[in-house]
Amino acid sequence: MKAKPLFEPKSALLIGSSKITEKVGMTSPKLFDRIAYNMKKYFKGSFSVLDIEKSLDIPKAELGIVVLPPKKSIILAEKLMKNGIKAIVQITGGFSEKERKEYLDIAMKYHTRLLGPNTIMGLINTENGLNTTFERDLHPKKGDIAIISQSGGVGAALLDWAKYYGIGISKFVFMGDKLDLDDANVLEYLKEDKQTKVIAMYMEGLKKGRRFVNLMKEITKEKPTVVLKGGITKEGAKRALSHTASVAGSDEIFNAAFIEAGMIRVIDIEELFDSALVLSKQQPMKGKNVAIVSNVGGPAILAADAVAREGLRLARFSKEVKDKISSKYPGIDVINPIDIIADARADRYETILDLVLNDKNVDGVMVINMLKSCFFESKDARIIYDVWKRYDKPIVDVPCGGEDFVLVSKVLRNTNIPTYDLPDKAARALNVLYKYWRISKA
Amino acid sequence: MKAKPLFEPKSALLIGSSKITEKVGMTSPKLFDRIAYNMKKYFKGSFSVLDIEKSLDIPKAELGIVVLPPKKSIILAEKLMKNGIKAIVQITGGFSEKERKEYLDIAMKYHTRLLGPNTIMGLINTENGLNTTFERDLHPKKGDIAIISQSGGVGAALLDWAKYYGIGISKFVFMGDKLDLDDANVLEYLKEDKQTKVIAMYMEGLKKGRRFVNLMKEITKEKPTVVLKGGITKEGAKRALSHTASVAGSDEIFNAAFIEAGMIRVIDIEELFDSALVLSKQQPMKGKNVAIVSNVGGPAILAADAVAREGLRLARFSKEVKDKISSKYPGIDVINPIDIIADARADRYETILDLVLNDKNVDGVMVINMLKSCFFESKDARIIYDVWKRYDKPIVDVPCGGEDFVLVSKVLRNTNIPTYDLPDKAARALNVLYKYWRISKA
Repeated sequence: MKAKPLFEPKSALLIGSSKITEKVGMTSPKLFDRIAYNMKKYFKGSFSVLDIEKSLDIPKAELGIVVLPPKKSIILAEKLMKNGIKAIVQITGGFSEKERKEYLDIAMKYHTRLLGPNTIMGLINTENGLNTTFERDLHPKKGDIAIISQSGGVGAALLDWAKYYGIGISKFVFMGDKLDLDDANVLEYLKEDKQTKVIAMYMEGLKKGRRFVNLMKEITKEKPTVVLKGGITKEGAKRALSHTASVAGSDEIFNAAFIEAGMIRVIDIEELFDSALVLSKQQPMKGKNVAIVSNVGGPAILAADAVAREGLRLARFSKEVKDKISSKYPGIDVINPIDIIADARADRYETILDLVLNDKNVDGVMVINMLKSCFFESKDARIIYDVWKRYDKPIVDVPCGGEDFVLVSKVLRNTNIPTYDLPDKAARALNVLYKYWRISKA
Repeated sequence: MKAKPLFEPKSALLIGSSKITEKVGMTSPKLFDRIAYNMKKYFKGSFSVLDIEKSLDIPKAELGIVVLPPKKSIILAEKLMKNGIKAIVQITGGFSEKERKEYLDIAMKYHTRLLGPNTIMGLINTENGLNTTFERDLHPKKGDIAIISQSGGVGAALLDWAKYYGIGISKFVFMGDKLDLDDANVLEYLKEDKQTKVIAMYMEGLKKGRRFVNLMKEITKEKPTVVLKGGITKEGAKRALSHTASVAGSDEIFNAAFIEAGMIRVIDIEELFDSALVLSKQQPMKGKNVAIVSNVGGPAILAADAVAREGLRLARFSKEVKDKISSKYPGIDVINPIDIIADARADRYETILDLVLNDKNVDGVMVINMLKSCFFESKDARIIYDVWKRYDKPIVDVPCGGEDFVLVSKVLRNTNIPTYDLPDKAARALNVLYKYWRISKA
């Protein structure tokens, strides 16, 4: 695993300059300072900083983080390599073709792995606290989702999103120019990484497509992978070309490749996170049949519409389940979606969910529990997690609305039950679980 | 305008019982108390409460709010009518066919307007503070969007959403069983209502379709109307039928009717609010040509994809504009989307937006301004509003990400510039402005 020294160094060394200022995003004392701040605060290994204006006495370390202009970077990198460094994160870019070749040649000579150049934000490993990004305290919480971004800007947005919404991250990588390590090398590492259960990617283009697809076919059997592709239209592709110099290619080709690779394609950042989260929290859904259990009528209708729109089916309850619910709750009309009436509290949800999950006609459940205009209290939502543990079928929860969503999400946040503010998002999440079941058994 | 006495009473009287408890959602002392709480706190007219267990001495008022079982409701309603009441909100339901006929007959006899029965939450008018809902302090802020809901549950979710996200509301109506006043009566009132600029509807079914379409054709010329239809699938429709006893009908027929009526159809609650908000804040977009002005590359690519997905076009900048930008900022590659580089602050956004908005090839602009990995500060966003005021073209803003979105939204919240956390939502909003331009000029 070529990328391992990059993610798991015992010691790290940051090399930069307190004087040199290039153009925006490149070498600057501010960038240098800010990376030092994050590394000092979060990295659990030994960490040292070298300001080349003050000293050229290079301390020993396993990982080098370089924030210097091209020529100086190459000179210092070679010194690091001679000194036994195992991997380098080349934050800054701007290398000429000649410089790129020179840099790669020395890395090859010393068997040193290189991320970048132009990775800008570098990488994060929440397990050992490695964080080479320059935004202060943009350190996500520990979790089992790994993120790979081919764009600095989209990567920054993804990181901001993960931090803000408290989404647990295992690894975060900004690929940069891929002079040495490429997506496949990082993916090979993530395949074996014990902290990573789900992979989320933002990509704009691809080289060595066949190798990538073959690798992903292996990975996606074990670890669900979600992908957002930028540059799907001619206009976007044109900008992508000038942006990361990647071959954007025809969207149909990518689509076919993603399908063959068993990757789940999404169309925006929210869907990327929603999909990764549900895959990290819930088991695959082994069929298309969804039961909707709701304490209100209208939102259940919207939920039924959303389930159909996703190409899933509304489960038909077995006669046995219908009879049991009807005899226990004569006021409830047992069709799917099932409206268990506005005065339902935890006990009624539990009884009905137990019956519904036991029904062989049901593959997964969408629960709707509103607080407004109902008797349900947010603490009641805990029962959904308790019932879920008794069966091997996925459940997603919709506290439909604004404040309702926030209140119920607080109760379920640290459980395996994902929450959505709209039935449409919950139906999409169930469909992702169904898609992954088809991928994992293919 | 038959619905006027309902929305604009100078005085209101709540009639209920401190003893009677029916089944959930119907008459109960708790419901009675809670409506009294909201009315006392928010209603600016004179307000009195009558507990029928204590007195039957009915004070004078223009609007009656009745929370009693069917038979008692009819008796009390007739007394109110004799006493000169102009309109009644019949909160509770459960009326038999015979009782419904009887109630309607006396209302007709006294020329009293009736909302409900079974309206459950009743209505809100933020102008005079009228609020007959029973959820404590679920009172949205004043604004120019009117909401009509055919479902109590969806209505409660919409109200929760509006309150939580601070969306300004003019009127809020829960239609209930429409024994007397129906959607058309309320719409006729909203057509003339000075506080209402945009109408948002949740509907499950429709009676008198031709009358509705003809009325909406008139209204949508002046006031944009957005509609979310529940029960679009057979499954949803089945539940809708048992839910509000409305004829759900074929979705194709509804679609054709909405198009003829000039109503903009959406598919979920978030889109309903996003569409209503952008229509209330921005002018119609008089063409399909969108310029994307961004301080980062990757999100601009996603924005270009989203614009194409919506069926809009990326504007081609005129030679004059290209030359002016290139000569002032030689580092910027002037294609659309235009990446104005990570160190852009308010001044550069201003200069470039001025040029772009002056370009006759541009019909509207999507601005992307990230804070993370950029020099942009949230206070800089104010300039977007300042530039917007100089032209007659719509601008939407995308502070892409989690925290970034919140920080920039705070700055722009009280301006006319709507903000979105994803370029996809911003593109959808621009498309709504384009759709409304086509409707308004048709």
